[in-house]
Amino acid sequence: MKFTKFFIQTQKDAPSDAVLPSHQYLLKGGFVSQEGAGLYNYLPLGKMVLDNIRNIVKEELDNAGAIEVQLSFVTPHSLWEESGRSETMDKEMLRFKDRKDNSFVLSPTNEEAMVNLVRQRVKSYKDLPVNLYQINTKFRDEARPRFGILRGREFLMKDGYSFHTSTEDMIREFNLMEYTYKKIFTRLGLEFRVVQADSGAIGGSGSKEFHVIANSGEDTLVICNSCDYGANIETIFEDESEVDALNELSYEELQNKKIEQKCSCGCKLSFKKGIEVGHIFQLGDRYSAPLKAEFLNKDQRKENMQMATFGIGVSRLIAAVIEQNHDDKGCIWTKTTTPFMCEVIVSNAKKEDELNAGLKVYEELKENNISTLIDDRVKERFGFKMKDFELLGFPYAIIIGKKLQENIVEVVCRRSGEKTDVAIDEVVAFIKDKLV
Amino acid sequence: MKFTKFFIQTQKDAPSDAVLPSHQYLLKGGFVSQEGAGLYNYLPLGKMVLDNIRNIVKEELDNAGAIEVQLSFVTPHSLWEESGRSETMDKEMLRFKDRKDNSFVLSPTNEEAMVNLVRQRVKSYKDLPVNLYQINTKFRDEARPRFGILRGREFLMKDGYSFHTSTEDMIREFNLMEYTYKKIFTRLGLEFRVVQADSGAIGGSGSKEFHVIANSGEDTLVICNSCDYGANIETIFEDESEVDALNELSYEELQNKKIEQKCSCGCKLSFKKGIEVGHIFQLGDRYSAPLKAEFLNKDQRKENMQMATFGIGVSRLIAAVIEQNHDDKGCIWTKTTTPFMCEVIVSNAKKEDELNAGLKVYEELKENNISTLIDDRVKERFGFKMKDFELLGFPYAIIIGKKLQENIVEVVCRRSGEKTDVAIDEVVAFIKDKLV
Repeated sequence: MKFTKFFIQTQKDAPSDAVLPSHQYLLKGGFVSQEGAGLYNYLPLGKMVLDNIRNIVKEELDNAGAIEVQLSFVTPHSLWEESGRSETMDKEMLRFKDRKDNSFVLSPTNEEAMVNLVRQRVKSYKDLPVNLYQINTKFRDEARPRFGILRGREFLMKDGYSFHTSTEDMIREFNLMEYTYKKIFTRLGLEFRVVQADSGAIGGSGSKEFHVIANSGEDTLVICNSCDYGANIETIFEDESEVDALNELSYEELQNKKIEQKCSCGCKLSFKKGIEVGHIFQLGDRYSAPLKAEFLNKDQRKENMQMATFGIGVSRLIAAVIEQNHDDKGCIWTKTTTPFMCEVIVSNAKKEDELNAGLKVYEELKENNISTLIDDRVKERFGFKMKDFELLGFPYAIIIGKKLQENIVEVVCRRSGEKTDVAIDEVVAFIKDKLV
Repeated sequence: MKFTKFFIQTQKDAPSDAVLPSHQYLLKGGFVSQEGAGLYNYLPLGKMVLDNIRNIVKEELDNAGAIEVQLSFVTPHSLWEESGRSETMDKEMLRFKDRKDNSFVLSPTNEEAMVNLVRQRVKSYKDLPVNLYQINTKFRDEARPRFGILRGREFLMKDGYSFHTSTEDMIREFNLMEYTYKKIFTRLGLEFRVVQADSGAIGGSGSKEFHVIANSGEDTLVICNSCDYGANIETIFEDESEVDALNELSYEELQNKKIEQKCSCGCKLSFKKGIEVGHIFQLGDRYSAPLKAEFLNKDQRKENMQMATFGIGVSRLIAAVIEQNHDDKGCIWTKTTTPFMCEVIVSNAKKEDELNAGLKVYEELKENNISTLIDDRVKERFGFKMKDFELLGFPYAIIIGKKLQENIVEVVCRRSGEKTDVAIDEVVAFIKDKLV
């Protein structure tokens, strides 16, 4: 893609309410723009990251045998009365009336609609198990939308729901999804922990959260430095006031806090902050009982389906990647989430030889299926282009500059900052080597 | 995909309000399910068709230089006051208040939001032209939602918006989009016409509609039988009562109606019914003037941007494909829209040799990148499986049945009904030949 044909406008300043790095950089880099309180538009670069994440989530879920659907975002309020959540869910669930004065809801989650779908279609134990998911818009009317797309009101969620003939089979799928989620977050290039959690408003017993480790996280975790153990502090400290006190501490204060207990692996535990990006629940018959989602068992008797539910915050993950991967200059995308793997920076695009050399490298990278942006802007100076590259955070830059006369270009690794002079004829092979 | 691992439940009957073939077959085949008035869920098969259409739309738009974004579905009401459409759009535009009593709108279209985005970011003639699009949920609170997903309330639309320094450049893009739309509808395998149209509520001058020719269409068209000429009757007959009278006629009555005029190519014209699936508008400054979307021209003077807008009814296209392609047994998908290219029907899956032969053919088709479903259901009889195949409408079936003893299978072409005996070792090559 050519910068001059694309739609990127970087900005010098972020709004004053943007305190988190992801909020600042995603706005300054033009990945997203704000439309209203807790409402965001995904601009071309942000849409590309969103699609990258979405595709990895879809691929791994499909591999695990889950099946994609897409439910109506607007749902009849009657469904929420049937499950009892019309009363238990507060104002976060946005209700409205249509022109005929019927009541509807902007889906904050979709247990009811999915149970409704399955109870109409699945009649026998032979049709089970089934795991249906969607990657679709959700709306929660948060009292205090903040932190940009990390806690917006409209967001993109992967919500999956599985239905089973027995608790054992539900637990089997729950474990399969834990395994699948680990694969997803690993492929996204994230450092994360799976932690035992409370089940909260969704209900049911047995639930695990997936947290991306980041200083700015809202949740306080205890993690092992050697193995992959992690826990929510609520599940470790029984004393509520102790939990509250820990939650009050900043990331820096937590760093200095010692934990007496050791991990079961024998190693040291420490406090970290985490951003919740996934949550899986064993629901049992929490929804299938009130909504009468039944099946005929082998003895031709009716039983309630056993159910589990699995969520991933797809749009939130964009922010989580940046919270974990940034420096004081801007974003540092992981290789699977980045909009472009490489940016060719033509130092002075007025010089025909520099522009042509840049275009040649750009075409060769594209032929090698390396997604590339070329900064072919004529008016902007090199320093400005470099600042944009650092803010936008693609993994590699190839700088076509003064050394072109010696057939040399400079490769910059955004993460390490390392700079390497490479012969222009070898630069595509050099980048390819980095990506193996 | 194996039938027994997938989520397909065909139904014998459609609801009584389903009068159109697409409405009946999409429900009976389990492509979609109804969630409420004008609200539909896309079940696995429907979601696959939706993705096929979406991918073709995206590919051709990207090739033409348009750039994808994704705007917030919920938009602040203030934007619609600024453009004046808060007053001119009727109850189709659904308004609601959030918990803080602020007013919002479920986007029925997104001119305002897109102009808002562009006016904040584009300052100079150097940043123009730009063509931004999204494929995103829309909501129109239709007084009488009907015909299933053909006229629902929540639907998926491709809406694109281009911005220009001059009317000439806007017309250039308008023509490019007409060309691109023709490519899209051709790739989807549809018979369609581009017709001159009135501009309606969107405003502006110069607009063209894209109609899929189908007996059940709501619009009455005049088309040439030889060239690609087509027109809306409103643009041909000046007398309003004549237009009204024509619109009253059924498809059969229209067939017998003669037209005196000849096409400019010299050939006969006739009446047809059409389903509107695309609409492109030259808007000029209809939105850029009230919303102050200005740019600095070469003389450093401010001018209003010239604007065009381009829509495709993405979810509606699913129904339009079926309205044009079906028979009295069910759907007949085109090769680019079908969820599966081929279905392997194991006549009696209790017989191990039939099932194994079927699985072998199935694996070989998959290795050849031919998307395939295998009907491996044990309990269902052959006649039932065949009826499902006809209802679901995949292009080809390979029947593994009695002739397997002679190493023969039967290939059925869904569209022509043609049946061919083929040696089992040659059947994959036979199917591949059909797809060239």
